[in-house]
Amino acid sequence: MPRGVLLSEPVRIGLLGQGTVGGAFALLVAERAEAVATATGRRPEISAVLRRSEGSFEEVLAGADVIVELIGGTDPARDYVLRALQAGKPVITANKQLVAQHGEELFAAARESGVQLRFEAAVAGAIPIIRVVSEGIGTLEVERISGIVNGTTNFILTEMAATGATYADTVRRAQELGYAEADPTADVSGSDAAAKMAILARIVFNTPVHLDDVSYEGIEGISADDIAYAKELGLSLKLLGIAERHEEGISVRVYPCFLYRGHPLAPVEGPFNAVTVEAPAITEITMSGPGAGGIETASAVLGDLVSILSGDAPGQDTSQSLKIIDELDSSFYLHLEVADRPGVLAAIAEVLGRHELSVKSVVQNGLGDDARLIMVVHRAPERHFYAALAEIEQLDFLRAAPRAIRVVEEEYV
Amino acid sequence: MPRGVLLSEPVRIGLLGQGTVGGAFALLVAERAEAVATATGRRPEISAVLRRSEGSFEEVLAGADVIVELIGGTDPARDYVLRALQAGKPVITANKQLVAQHGEELFAAARESGVQLRFEAAVAGAIPIIRVVSEGIGTLEVERISGIVNGTTNFILTEMAATGATYADTVRRAQELGYAEADPTADVSGSDAAAKMAILARIVFNTPVHLDDVSYEGIEGISADDIAYAKELGLSLKLLGIAERHEEGISVRVYPCFLYRGHPLAPVEGPFNAVTVEAPAITEITMSGPGAGGIETASAVLGDLVSILSGDAPGQDTSQSLKIIDELDSSFYLHLEVADRPGVLAAIAEVLGRHELSVKSVVQNGLGDDARLIMVVHRAPERHFYAALAEIEQLDFLRAAPRAIRVVEEEYV
Repeated sequence: MPRGVLLSEPVRIGLLGQGTVGGAFALLVAERAEAVATATGRRPEISAVLRRSEGSFEEVLAGADVIVELIGGTDPARDYVLRALQAGKPVITANKQLVAQHGEELFAAARESGVQLRFEAAVAGAIPIIRVVSEGIGTLEVERISGIVNGTTNFILTEMAATGATYADTVRRAQELGYAEADPTADVSGSDAAAKMAILARIVFNTPVHLDDVSYEGIEGISADDIAYAKELGLSLKLLGIAERHEEGISVRVYPCFLYRGHPLAPVEGPFNAVTVEAPAITEITMSGPGAGGIETASAVLGDLVSILSGDAPGQDTSQSLKIIDELDSSFYLHLEVADRPGVLAAIAEVLGRHELSVKSVVQNGLGDDARLIMVVHRAPERHFYAALAEIEQLDFLRAAPRAIRVVEEEYV
Repeated sequence: MPRGVLLSEPVRIGLLGQGTVGGAFALLVAERAEAVATATGRRPEISAVLRRSEGSFEEVLAGADVIVELIGGTDPARDYVLRALQAGKPVITANKQLVAQHGEELFAAARESGVQLRFEAAVAGAIPIIRVVSEGIGTLEVERISGIVNGTTNFILTEMAATGATYADTVRRAQELGYAEADPTADVSGSDAAAKMAILARIVFNTPVHLDDVSYEGIEGISADDIAYAKELGLSLKLLGIAERHEEGISVRVYPCFLYRGHPLAPVEGPFNAVTVEAPAITEITMSGPGAGGIETASAVLGDLVSILSGDAPGQDTSQSLKIIDELDSSFYLHLEVADRPGVLAAIAEVLGRHELSVKSVVQNGLGDDARLIMVVHRAPERHFYAALAEIEQLDFLRAAPRAIRVVEEEYV
């Protein structure tokens, strides 16, 4: 539709859910209706709102040109979105679980009806990362996409580094400030980040990726110690999602890991999100912004609406079917509380050497009952490292269970 | 056009110019033709190349479906692009001067013919900033867009800060490394950045902005001293482009300025570009990546091609006509080499106070012939500051001309 031509008919939005995001979206639509009309030729208006306790989905659907799903969860969201797509109505959703778990089914329904399913708001708040990877660099050969895609955990890790406080105390502080929920499990376990990485990996590698394909570890086991010692090694700790192309397929994982200064995600602090995309033709680009608050999510939904009204094609075909692999190489930080006696370092070095692991750096710290070895082990097959770790755990001079955290070793500019 | 449907007809690209970028683009098209065909249904191929010394534009145009302009400069690029648009062929250009100086005429021609003019590659290399501001957040009320949009100057300033070397030595080093041209004037004077900021301001504020509307200052006057002293104040120096919305209109300016730690552009080092967009509905988002090399520029051109083939609408109507204003408030760093005698600080404070300028911080450094005052003056009307500066220049205890550099005072998260 040519821009600047105002049709008499407004575009009617059927809004599902009216929590924080729904309310922010309704306000934003009212505020920016004129700008959307100027840009697309059609003025948006919210024709009906389906709340948990009232309203009929059938009626909302019948009276809408576009459905905006902001109820969250997969049930009944999945049913509603499917029925809307089958009825030939484009759908915008902010629901990462829905897309990560039922994406293929929903994309198939959208294709069949020839309508769009858009979900910019599902990943990284206001950062238009879906748009950038699906359109701007959508035909480049992406090698890796790395993201800090959970603001809660980044806030917690930043606070721990700044204050030296324990994990438990910092979670409480995050809850007081509204950065963490009463039950923080989805965030701190890495499962929220895993859903987002499944969505990103699907788009950049053009292949089906389900939430179950993503292995994830959380930050619950991180101690203030680890962060303090890592500082000595010039490292900062992030909960990172990494989706990578390998010869045999792709890997999609979420885990806490240390970054060297110079990594584009190392300076990202507080409740922020950031994503780095690497491809030969762009080297790397990084996008950062605040994590998903109500207004940021609403603005991403509005951006999707404008794209639908402008007739932009989102391009969600999956032309490939890549194998998901989980046998990978990594570099590790290893923190060992040991007895202060001769031969300890030699014994550990012997185990590492036997598993073909080489040490990049080692710091020996403390005396007597506080003696510790903090080392960084070079990139090697993870199964070698874990085999060595199992042996080290049995050594009689260990005073506590060893702690291991991955390190992103690659050099960035 | 539906995706995944391969038409028999390829899309024929008429390529104007075959320098570094043209060559990189030709290679990239060959390499990614299959991916573009999968995404858009049409396989791209370069049908003809117009070189400076050979070929006829008429023939290239007649045999092409899309024109890609990579010759640079405004003459004959302007004529070629106009004629292509008038002939109903979409055009992709990487030519910032062309868009910044003749944008309105070209956009009008594109509108009249109902074809697209795209120029992602003209600003910030591989960072898809044009796409993000024109589509993703195109209908939000942007308050400010700030950018490090010239990689050469950012490399020079980063090197000066790291090595303490002089400006002249660092420029020579940048030339040796290929980061600066034999004649670096366009970069170091700020005029290259000014053209890019004109383009960005035009899009985010939806109003005509010509290169002549942008006031710019370069980095030629920066001394190693300034950078070293600013470090003591916790500041880092960037050549920044800033386009802002004010009550009475907009301002678009380029100047060297100091940023506090915490500013999203403060960590951007070396030959990188980065842009921060601020709007109430997104708080701020920042995109960063390498400055425009051949391959990055080529990848941005390819992204534009995919958008055109996908039928995405770029939305370059200018519905507003905002006044360009240049009477602004700024905070300043002020470096004064003074005689080491009583009453100096009092005399300067008196001048500043009389012009309603208040001092945020002051460092007194050196003794005798090396005595200096380095201060940061709070945000105030620039004309007040410049009036005070003119008076200070006349004070008899000044041993050299005063040096003033703007400071971005705003607090970021």
